Amino acid sequence: MHKGLIVQKFGGSSVADVKRIQNVAKRVVSYKKKGYDLVVVVSALGDTTDELVELAGKINPEPSEREMDMLLSTGEQISVALLAMAIHKLGQEAISFTGAQVGIITDSSHTRARIIKINADKIKEELSKGKIVIVAGFQGVTLTHDITTLGRGGSDLTAVALAKELLACECEIYTDVEGIYTADPRIERKARKINAITYDEMLEMASLGAQVMQARSVEVAKKFNVPIHVRSSFSNNQGTLIIKEVKRMEDVVVSGITLDKTEAKITICNVPDRPGVAAKIFGELSGAGISVDMIVQNVSHLRQTDISFTVKKAEFSKAIKLAKRVASGIGAGDVLEDVDIARVSVVGVGMKSHPGVAAGMFDTLAKHKINIEMISTSDISISCIIKRKFAKTAVRALHEKFGLSK
Amino acid sequence: MHKGLIVQKFGGSSVADVKRIQNVAKRVVSYKKKGYDLVVVVSALGDTTDELVELAGKINPEPSEREMDMLLSTGEQISVALLAMAIHKLGQEAISFTGAQVGIITDSSHTRARIIKINADKIKEELSKGKIVIVAGFQGVTLTHDITTLGRGGSDLTAVALAKELLACECEIYTDVEGIYTADPRIERKARKINAITYDEMLEMASLGAQVMQARSVEVAKKFNVPIHVRSSFSNNQGTLIIKEVKRMEDVVVSGITLDKTEAKITICNVPDRPGVAAKIFGELSGAGISVDMIVQNVSHLRQTDISFTVKKAEFSKAIKLAKRVASGIGAGDVLEDVDIARVSVVGVGMKSHPGVAAGMFDTLAKHKINIEMISTSDISISCIIKRKFAKTAVRALHEKFGLSK
Repeated sequence: MHKGLIVQKFGGSSVADVKRIQNVAKRVVSYKKKGYDLVVVVSALGDTTDELVELAGKINPEPSEREMDMLLSTGEQISVALLAMAIHKLGQEAISFTGAQVGIITDSSHTRARIIKINADKIKEELSKGKIVIVAGFQGVTLTHDITTLGRGGSDLTAVALAKELLACECEIYTDVEGIYTADPRIERKARKINAITYDEMLEMASLGAQVMQARSVEVAKKFNVPIHVRSSFSNNQGTLIIKEVKRMEDVVVSGITLDKTEAKITICNVPDRPGVAAKIFGELSGAGISVDMIVQNVSHLRQTDISFTVKKAEFSKAIKLAKRVASGIGAGDVLEDVDIARVSVVGVGMKSHPGVAAGMFDTLAKHKINIEMISTSDISISCIIKRKFAKTAVRALHEKFGLSK
Repeated sequence: MHKGLIVQKFGGSSVADVKRIQNVAKRVVSYKKKGYDLVVVVSALGDTTDELVELAGKINPEPSEREMDMLLSTGEQISVALLAMAIHKLGQEAISFTGAQVGIITDSSHTRARIIKINADKIKEELSKGKIVIVAGFQGVTLTHDITTLGRGGSDLTAVALAKELLACECEIYTDVEGIYTADPRIERKARKINAITYDEMLEMASLGAQVMQARSVEVAKKFNVPIHVRSSFSNNQGTLIIKEVKRMEDVVVSGITLDKTEAKITICNVPDRPGVAAKIFGELSGAGISVDMIVQNVSHLRQTDISFTVKKAEFSKAIKLAKRVASGIGAGDVLEDVDIARVSVVGVGMKSHPGVAAGMFDTLAKHKINIEMISTSDISISCIIKRKFAKTAVRALHEKFGLSK
């Protein structure tokens, strides 16, 4: 009868109202009745966090990060208490805990704390009494008892970290989609749910714009080999497994196509081609806290070159100002900007051994008269920057080309 | 410059919206600038607690008390974080804490926990750094780290207990009225604010329906001789001091008139007049958790008597059922009920040495043709149960009679 431990995580949309909380309770209880031990991690109800952030902004446009954590951590505390009550209503024993109460110890980087260790004794004790243990996601506590939050995707991280600490057989991430798809189903109707994907592929997918799971949690899962199951809280369908190695019947070269429209491109023209110039440019940007993504430097003509790079749109205006100052400082020419770009990528572990993927991608884009502005590659992905207006066409064409609609 | 420590407590109506939170911040900062050390205790924003109770009720009509505390304690946590942000905005250092973080240790009676001890080291440490310390009212934590709440009036209790522990020179209770009045100003326009009142008088006033402060906090203040100052958060006027002894210029016999319309009366007729019968009746009621307030037993005729008592209306239907069962068990007669009653009381330490007060009260009611149904007295109060419809007339007449309008 006893089947081991599962960690289940439910996001804000899964607990947005009374009815949904009751549905989550039903699902949790059904697993308990099947014989599993359960640790359930919950996010704040629906838009609670956004509402609290807005309220804080009205009081202080630059709120203290410590007080922000104090404020935001209440959202998950409300969720866990309500879920415990809903499970009690179904006749099962359950007990809720804050991050502090179950000993999720973090550093003191408020609003983006990192987990240092987890003292899981309290959870183990309650599990041994047969209780369903409900833990507030997204939050922890410093060694000096200050409440911290883990930043974006923090509840996923709580779930994965607890799964690792408690040696869970699986970490289920419940969300409002059925799993990871070969492409965004809103763009490509033929997109299929992927049954299994490796940590590395998921990391590429996550960093390339697939918004289901934050890269950070997948990295931790990979590091400790925690099997993740991403699935929908609104159905009983199997979702997508994220695991170390996927044994496929056939050799799948490309697992999925991703699209990222959150970036903008900056080009510094006529950069003097001498050592240390690139270091100067990107050193200044990183010093200002701006993350640069793709960087392309063309071959030199007449001891001058053009350097292009992409940054997040949120940091674009800051980046362009800095780029202009640096350009004039090093004696470069014009600084060009382009915010109407999109990044389309093909991802798959199979492409390591298939040199034809890049050629196939470029060929497909060319056939659709889509100009490639920048290219970057990794072991398991190839990304092209194209004009934003061609984004959907590119995704559909590549999805077709690599046989993902089958 | 340094003037000692004040504990200030702000109720839910004082922090109901952004503007009010900002006003509280301004007041706190003005005290800090005068040279006081400050510990500020805050309740949940406006109706937050009621909203959370309602939400819980939708999920589970009989929610676990432990989970209820987990849920409700978030209300005060939100308040303290927002108040800290508002104080920061005014350029002062402040830090917020939950009840658990400042070591307000309670027993494990969830929803009505009692404070066992306070480890105030954390507060003292932050005060010594010159910070304004903000503490979530109404909550504590057990020795096993479960979050508890202190029940009705809990934030007042937090403030008084901290004032005692930190040897504060005063505990200010900010509310939405100017202080304690000689009668309810909504009933008697001539009611005056009382400048100073003793703990004992306030206890009588509190238990007799004056809703400004719960008896429990006044009892603790009395026990440890903590001076309380009840005042309005919407003005700078002096409020009412609640202290051990009031030195008055003249001998004030009666301090105030109170009115309580929350009770109902039950009469068991023709009760056999033999030993143990009263014990049987009130033993059953107390066994069912029903608090009985006033009890009157008339003289016996023909070895039978009538016993009347009052209970809170909330417990009335439970009490009447029980009374009927007990009555038939002991061979008594009819059980009569009356929910249209009111309790009017005169309160004052001066009346101990003035035997004329009772006579004056009865005479005044008689002159207004108000029949007295039950009478009860203590050292410093006399209460009469009258028909509810005469309540306002009685309050006004007694207010006039005892010279409180002057």
